[in-house]
Amino acid sequence: MRTAFYISDGTGITSEVFGHALLSLFPAEFDHITIPFVETKEIALQAKQRINDRYKTTGIRPLIFQTFVDEELRQIINSSDGVCYDFLNAFIEPMQKELGIAAMPKTHRTHSIHEKTYDFRIDAVNYALANDDGVNLKEYAKADIILVGVSRSGKTPTSLYLALQYGIKAANYPFVQEDMDMLRLPDELKKQKAKLFGLTITPERLSKIREQRRPGSKYASLRQCKLELDEVEALYQKEKIPFLNSTHLSIEEISAKILAQTGLKRQKY
Amino acid sequence: MRTAFYISDGTGITSEVFGHALLSLFPAEFDHITIPFVETKEIALQAKQRINDRYKTTGIRPLIFQTFVDEELRQIINSSDGVCYDFLNAFIEPMQKELGIAAMPKTHRTHSIHEKTYDFRIDAVNYALANDDGVNLKEYAKADIILVGVSRSGKTPTSLYLALQYGIKAANYPFVQEDMDMLRLPDELKKQKAKLFGLTITPERLSKIREQRRPGSKYASLRQCKLELDEVEALYQKEKIPFLNSTHLSIEEISAKILAQTGLKRQKY
Repeated sequence: MRTAFYISDGTGITSEVFGHALLSLFPAEFDHITIPFVETKEIALQAKQRINDRYKTTGIRPLIFQTFVDEELRQIINSSDGVCYDFLNAFIEPMQKELGIAAMPKTHRTHSIHEKTYDFRIDAVNYALANDDGVNLKEYAKADIILVGVSRSGKTPTSLYLALQYGIKAANYPFVQEDMDMLRLPDELKKQKAKLFGLTITPERLSKIREQRRPGSKYASLRQCKLELDEVEALYQKEKIPFLNSTHLSIEEISAKILAQTGLKRQKY
Repeated sequence: MRTAFYISDGTGITSEVFGHALLSLFPAEFDHITIPFVETKEIALQAKQRINDRYKTTGIRPLIFQTFVDEELRQIINSSDGVCYDFLNAFIEPMQKELGIAAMPKTHRTHSIHEKTYDFRIDAVNYALANDDGVNLKEYAKADIILVGVSRSGKTPTSLYLALQYGIKAANYPFVQEDMDMLRLPDELKKQKAKLFGLTITPERLSKIREQRRPGSKYASLRQCKLELDEVEALYQKEKIPFLNSTHLSIEEISAKILAQTGLKRQKY
């Protein structure tokens, strides 16, 4: 199997995203190795050695996705036996021309700490934790968004992702039997109606997820899941709450769709 | 201010990472607009119109970072008044040559749902929540890693990030007064010593963070912070627990450094 190296003087996240996007276009499997924080000549030479060793043992040239801003380090990796793909370098020239200013490369700029953004994110994570699963109905006035839905429809991971990635304060509330019996919103949610966003899911998938949690329970039965989902979707319609079906979506996709549909302002770009 | 558009037939995350990495090289400010899920000709034409309108109102050509795999949609955006940067297209050719296979573009591959990976991530998020802040010491045998440190040193956001991004099960434990007085590890942690990873932080930064939480408290005082950090670092040294200082690091950087230092196997690449 061919090896893909992701090498960077920072976290390597950009190199990984860059490499994955390209590799996902090809119907093949790869061995993935990330070498982050290659910040000195010495570490770069070690990384080069790892690439060359890999070539020697496998006989196939590894692919190198790198995002160095330091020219000397970049050259060391480029001189390895790997096939180097370097997207920053490929686009700097045309961008300099278009912007009419020179690039001023600084390492660690993309995924490093930006104090203001950082505080927003940590605050948002703390908020999501304190307002997870309907444990707290009193802080909904501070929410940017309140995710609603039946138990296990994806609310918690989505709330946390919105907080960590975008600094968005997301509370989440799981409808309880009483809400459903009456087909009505609890008063605390009614007051914040413009912030509500519903999640739904197919009964089959919900039952499968719940089955892992409480095997053989009524809670996990297809009949119970279908009942709850029918009710909750009727409630969304009745109250005109925007919603989406999370069944075939990743956490990233659910979050991106919520941002696109609500026009929610993110704190981090 | 010049506008940067991130346009994609998927979440737009790849386009954003790609664009941010490039823009961060330039000493300038930009207006950011993401248009995700451009999946049809009609939506692509609307996106093109938004770009052209922006050019008309600002008089400056917007920058377009796009990652389309569909040729027709790509062409529609390319025919806009924006300056298009298209990294997939720039690298597909040389990669096809090197790999000796044709690219088989499929939309939504990078950040879409992969059932196996997905379950790992959700399980890891649930694990992190159930084992946050030392609330549960009984499930440490199932942990991939246990983050330790004083209150507010970054353990919780890091645990959640490791879970969401990498599917790693991270518990976290905040040392309590008794642990510190005795300069010893609780029994539950001793049993899992190989999994422990310590976080530390400067007293100044810790005091600032705690001050936001409980203004004027002893808990937030510089003296108390310094005392706790001295003790905790002595404990790390005594017990040979690997640790890092999170003061100037983002959540991404802390997580990447932990992965690099521990060699922890991630479930998601």
